[in-house]
Amino acid sequence: MTEKQGRAAGPVVVIGAGLIGASVGCALTAAGRQVHLRDASASHAQVAATLGAGRTDPPVATDVALVVVAVPPRAIADVVTEALISYPRATVTDVGSVKAGVLKALWQGEVGLERYVGSHPMAGSQHSGPVTARADLFQDRTWVITPHRRSAPLSVERVHDLAEDCGAVTVVMDVDDHDAAVARVSHLPHLMSVLMAGHLTSVPERHLLLAGQGLRDVTRVAGGDPGLWEQIVGANSEAVLSELRSVADELSRVIKALEAGPETEELRGQLHRGVQGTRRIPGKHGSAPVAYQQVVVAIPDAPGALAKLFTDVGVAGVNVEDISIEHDQARQVGYISLSVTPEQAPGLESAMRQHGWQVQL
Amino acid sequence: MTEKQGRAAGPVVVIGAGLIGASVGCALTAAGRQVHLRDASASHAQVAATLGAGRTDPPVATDVALVVVAVPPRAIADVVTEALISYPRATVTDVGSVKAGVLKALWQGEVGLERYVGSHPMAGSQHSGPVTARADLFQDRTWVITPHRRSAPLSVERVHDLAEDCGAVTVVMDVDDHDAAVARVSHLPHLMSVLMAGHLTSVPERHLLLAGQGLRDVTRVAGGDPGLWEQIVGANSEAVLSELRSVADELSRVIKALEAGPETEELRGQLHRGVQGTRRIPGKHGSAPVAYQQVVVAIPDAPGALAKLFTDVGVAGVNVEDISIEHDQARQVGYISLSVTPEQAPGLESAMRQHGWQVQL
Repeated sequence: MTEKQGRAAGPVVVIGAGLIGASVGCALTAAGRQVHLRDASASHAQVAATLGAGRTDPPVATDVALVVVAVPPRAIADVVTEALISYPRATVTDVGSVKAGVLKALWQGEVGLERYVGSHPMAGSQHSGPVTARADLFQDRTWVITPHRRSAPLSVERVHDLAEDCGAVTVVMDVDDHDAAVARVSHLPHLMSVLMAGHLTSVPERHLLLAGQGLRDVTRVAGGDPGLWEQIVGANSEAVLSELRSVADELSRVIKALEAGPETEELRGQLHRGVQGTRRIPGKHGSAPVAYQQVVVAIPDAPGALAKLFTDVGVAGVNVEDISIEHDQARQVGYISLSVTPEQAPGLESAMRQHGWQVQL
Repeated sequence: MTEKQGRAAGPVVVIGAGLIGASVGCALTAAGRQVHLRDASASHAQVAATLGAGRTDPPVATDVALVVVAVPPRAIADVVTEALISYPRATVTDVGSVKAGVLKALWQGEVGLERYVGSHPMAGSQHSGPVTARADLFQDRTWVITPHRRSAPLSVERVHDLAEDCGAVTVVMDVDDHDAAVARVSHLPHLMSVLMAGHLTSVPERHLLLAGQGLRDVTRVAGGDPGLWEQIVGANSEAVLSELRSVADELSRVIKALEAGPETEELRGQLHRGVQGTRRIPGKHGSAPVAYQQVVVAIPDAPGALAKLFTDVGVAGVNVEDISIEHDQARQVGYISLSVTPEQAPGLESAMRQHGWQVQL
C-alpha cells in the first residue's frame, strides 16, 4: 500500500478479451488484482471470465487505475482515446505489436497523453481468441515498455507493475527502436515463413510426401491469422520494407552465385553467416546465448574405451550439450570433445582425470 | 529363406559411420542382420560399433549382399564405384540427398550399374557424427528409392528390404523427380532459413532480446552443418535455382506492394497463400493432412454456460483440436465451433445433444 502506489490504486479494465487480453486478465487476477473485462463480443468476454480472467460487470469509471487495450492493431488508437476519456484517472496502455503509428495517431488527437504509455508483451500463439488464454503466457517473456516524452512517471510505473504482475521481464525502448526491432525479429521471419509456405501451394502432392521436420519448423508461423498479420505488417511497413530489401539483395546474390557455376564460395559464406545468426538468438528466457566450453579427452584406439568414457561422463552427472570426435591419423589417437556449460567444465575435467582419462588443455 | 531372398543373402557393409550410416547400422543390427562398418576415421567406426551399429572387422568380400554408402555428397560416386568393384556380388546403394549428379557420374564410369540403386531416407538431425545415432531414426519416415533403367530387380528388392528393416516407408521415384522434390521441401526451406538467420548477424543485440519462438523455429535448420549443405545445394543447384527464382519473384511483389502504400491486398493474398501452404504439409508420419470437422453448438448468453459446455466436452472424451466462437449480435446468441477429427464428430454431436445442447447442422 505504500511504495507500490500504482498497484494499489484501483481496479484494472482489460478491453479486448482475445488470447492476449484474456491472458493478461488471468495473470492479474491470479496476482490478486480486480479485473473488469470488456469486449465488442459479449461471448468473448464471458468465455474469458469463465476462464478466470476477471468479471464482466463495469467498474466505477473514476476508480479505474489501469486500462489494458488488447484489441486488433487498426482499432488501438481509437480505443485508447476512448479509454483516456472514459476512465479519467486511469493509466492506459496498449499491447499492440507496432508502436509508432498508434502514438502518431494519438498525438494528432485532442486528448492529453500523460496517462498513455504503450507496451508490447513478446508472447503469443498461433491460436487466437480467449479459449487458449493462460495466466502464465507472459512468464519470463520480454515485455517492452515504450514511454513517450509526455508520459507521466506514475503511468510508466503502473505499466511496469502490470508487466511484473504478469511475470514478464521489462525492457524500455523508444517507439521507433521497438518497431525496427520487431520488423527484424518478428515481422521479417513471419514473411519469410509465409513466402516459403506459400510456395508450397504450387508443389505437387507427391513431392510434399518428402517433407520433414525442417519444413514444418520453417513454415509453422505462416499458419498464423492472416487478418491480424496484414494489420501488423501494414502498420510497420516502412521498417519491414527495409529488412525485406536487404534479404532480397542477399537472395539475388545467392541466385547469381549459383548461376555462375559450381564454385560455391558465396553459398558457403551465406551458410556460415546463417550458423552465426542462429548463435546470436538469446535463450528461451531472454538470457544471453550460452557459449559452451569444450572438454577434450584423448581416447585410445581400443574396443570398449568409448563405452567406458560415456559411463564415466554419466557418473560425473554433467549435462553434455554436444559431442564431437577428432582423429589424429599420424598419432593413431582419437579425441572426444565434450561441450558443457562453463560452470560445469572444471568439474567434468577433474572427474575425468580421476577416472584415469587424459584431458587436453 | 524363401521369398525374401535379398534379405537372407549375406552380410551388409555400411561405408561412412556418421549419423545416417551409424543409425542404419543400429537399425539393421537390431533387425538381426550382420553389419560391418567402414569409415575413413577409425574412431568414427569404433564409436558406431560401441553404440551397436555393427562390427569393425572386414567381411569376406564375395559374401556381401548389400553395401550402404553413407559418405559426404562429393565422395559418393567414387565410393559407390569402389564398392561395386570390391564387393562383386553386392547390391550397392547410397543415402545421399541428391541423386541425379551421382547417377550421371556413375554412367560416365567404367563399371556396370545393374547392382547400383540410389536411395534417400528422409531423416536427419542438426547433429552429425555417430554419437547421436539411433536405431529408430528412420521409423515411419519416408525412404525414397530411385532405380535407374539398368537396375536389376533383385537389387531394387534388396534396397526395399533395407528401408523396411529400418522401419521406413518406401517411395519409388525417378532421380530428376526426386531432386526437384527435395529442392522444394528441403533445400529451399533450408536456404530461406539461412537467409533469415544470416540477416540476424547485422541486427543489434538489444533488438534480439525481443526474439520469440517464431524466430527460433524459422531459423533452426540454418544451424545445420554448412559444409554438408554446401555440397547438397551445390549438387542440386539447377533445381534449387528454379525454386529460388520463384521465391525471389514473390518477394519482389511483396516489396513493390508495400512500397505502393497502405493498400495491402497483395500482402493479404500472400498471407492467405502461406496459410494454405502450411495446410498442404502431410502429418508427421507421412500421412495426409487431417481435415477437421466442425461441431457447432449454440450457447445461451448466461453465466456458467461455457463452463458447463467445456465440462460436457471433457466428459465426452473427445480430443478438440481447435475452438472458435461466433456471436450473433441480432439474435443475442453465441456459437462455439469445436474442431475434431471426422471420426470423432458424430460421437461428440450425440454426446452434446444428450447433455441438452443445441447442435447446429
